[in-house]
Amino acid sequence: MTTVTVLGSGVMGTAMAFPLAENGHEVRLVGTHLDREIIDSVKKSGLHPNLDLGVPEGVRAYQLEEAEAAFEGAEIALVGVNSFGVRWAGERLAELLRPGMDVLAVTKGLEATEGGDLRILPDVMRERVPEELRESVSWSAIVGPAIAGEVAVGHETCVVFTGEEAEVLDRLAGIFRTESYHVWTSTDFVGCEVCAAVKNCYAFGAGFMDGLLDREGKTENRYRRFNYGSALFAQATRELAGWMELLGGRSDTPYGLPGVGDMLVTSLGGRNVRAGRFVGSGVPFSEVREKKMKGVTLEGVAAIEVIGGALPKLTERGEVGAGDFPLMRHLHEVVAEDAPVAMPWGTFFGGESSR
Amino acid sequence: MTTVTVLGSGVMGTAMAFPLAENGHEVRLVGTHLDREIIDSVKKSGLHPNLDLGVPEGVRAYQLEEAEAAFEGAEIALVGVNSFGVRWAGERLAELLRPGMDVLAVTKGLEATEGGDLRILPDVMRERVPEELRESVSWSAIVGPAIAGEVAVGHETCVVFTGEEAEVLDRLAGIFRTESYHVWTSTDFVGCEVCAAVKNCYAFGAGFMDGLLDREGKTENRYRRFNYGSALFAQATRELAGWMELLGGRSDTPYGLPGVGDMLVTSLGGRNVRAGRFVGSGVPFSEVREKKMKGVTLEGVAAIEVIGGALPKLTERGEVGAGDFPLMRHLHEVVAEDAPVAMPWGTFFGGESSR
Repeated sequence: MTTVTVLGSGVMGTAMAFPLAENGHEVRLVGTHLDREIIDSVKKSGLHPNLDLGVPEGVRAYQLEEAEAAFEGAEIALVGVNSFGVRWAGERLAELLRPGMDVLAVTKGLEATEGGDLRILPDVMRERVPEELRESVSWSAIVGPAIAGEVAVGHETCVVFTGEEAEVLDRLAGIFRTESYHVWTSTDFVGCEVCAAVKNCYAFGAGFMDGLLDREGKTENRYRRFNYGSALFAQATRELAGWMELLGGRSDTPYGLPGVGDMLVTSLGGRNVRAGRFVGSGVPFSEVREKKMKGVTLEGVAAIEVIGGALPKLTERGEVGAGDFPLMRHLHEVVAEDAPVAMPWGTFFGGESSR
Repeated sequence: MTTVTVLGSGVMGTAMAFPLAENGHEVRLVGTHLDREIIDSVKKSGLHPNLDLGVPEGVRAYQLEEAEAAFEGAEIALVGVNSFGVRWAGERLAELLRPGMDVLAVTKGLEATEGGDLRILPDVMRERVPEELRESVSWSAIVGPAIAGEVAVGHETCVVFTGEEAEVLDRLAGIFRTESYHVWTSTDFVGCEVCAAVKNCYAFGAGFMDGLLDREGKTENRYRRFNYGSALFAQATRELAGWMELLGGRSDTPYGLPGVGDMLVTSLGGRNVRAGRFVGSGVPFSEVREKKMKGVTLEGVAAIEVIGGALPKLTERGEVGAGDFPLMRHLHEVVAEDAPVAMPWGTFFGGESSR
């Protein structure tokens, strides 16, 4: 039996308790300062209000001020915060980790430096931890197509555990694998993390197709805009490969679970797609942010701001060609400049289509 | 102005009349012996009953016995028959083509020899044409994510014209391109055609996820099986790459419009997905074929029979490893042996997941 403490009791962190509990491991769920009501609910009735499911029997919930007790004797720290909480999580881990522990993150995103250099979030997180402690634990992450609720109800899910040490990944995979939760491993840490972040951006664009139908009053028509969405998906796949080349990921990582697999599941629904749909229907993005979806966390949009925002800097420095990543550039215009959706089709797929 | 004669007045062949008419070209629509009612309808009222749309003004319809008049002076022969009609179409072209014409096919599929060698359909079609005539015309095809009705109503569509001669492809692309119909070109004829055929097989599998929900009475539940479908999509993408290696396509062709793009649009709906859903829900495939969808043309299933059926032969000959293409092998078991859907997850993605 392994003791796993989950920091951040959002839907994904909590969903991981299900395969773990199935395998007989001890799971302790620690809420952040934003999760107070979730933890209250789990403590009281076992119900996770956002998942709308009861957590598995034996899972214990802790408020943030009880974190130290939750980490007592734990072997794995599962980081379940979202991209906005990664620095905060690193600071907590600096206090809570003990040498020999394994850290496993589900957080997805990238951070950019002033100059436009992009860094994966596990790196941002681990540099908050003092060097000696940092070196005495392992750092890994989970990527791949995994809607949290589907994991929780035991629907078949295939993911990749990624990090730098193959033996660590194999060991962790063995702890999590069940009959329905299938785990592969990859030491392409950078490639997997970049795919996980970048696909969130492209999933925002997946909302445009229905938005355009809304705008034209064709939402109920027989013919939809699947050709449009599928062409965007193909261009996004092409751009995933470009990000690997630029940031040092393995060339085949985009074509498996961390790339096309996760991009597809993220494009099939969720908040980012909903935000994209509003924009496609003609609502300027600033209005989506301030009115239509006020207060809703939009990680894909945040990723577009970071990654799309880095592109002009990288282009200016000569690291990226001006014609590269045309879809990401357009997504950034839409989000950062309130540009209306107007696909620059002629620039896609290497730009051979002239009309 | 170019004169284009379409042989086969199904939805895809007919949809091509829309961009052509928009560009001021003359389009002549020739029905096969199966299209008699369609041609009657177009002649009488201009309505294409299966598209549920009126054809563009100026498009003229011909019954098969009027084909010679329809080919008189035509510069392009657009072959709109499905994979079952490709030999028939080749025989008609042998009579109807004139030297200097360009042949452009929308047919998708592969044919297998007794020994299991797979061949692209344009090759099957063109070998029905006497050598001298065959050499005096050009042979190309259209691939990529294009639902016919969406092309017809002018929704944005991105496709690839593929063949052996770049200049021919550029010329043809220029004739078809409109503000909404975007055309790229590729001289990877084999790779594009193999992707077009193989993705139809995998799209059948895309129906399983909803079928499994049906079987368990969970169709209306909050949590669906998008993780399942996305994992299959990732494995299918991996297998597309394997087909390129085996049959000689370019390694990057699966990652653009002809591969992931077309596979996505085909997975989003249609008859093959519906058939897959029945099987996922627990209906043996023989019952789907003989009862639930009796008389419905299932090109994806036919492609599974051909391509999946060739795999044991290719394996026996040592051209394919026994562990390669596990998803295609399972699809073939389902279709040819009435096997229930039971994904061999552990064999996917190179087989590293052991449980």
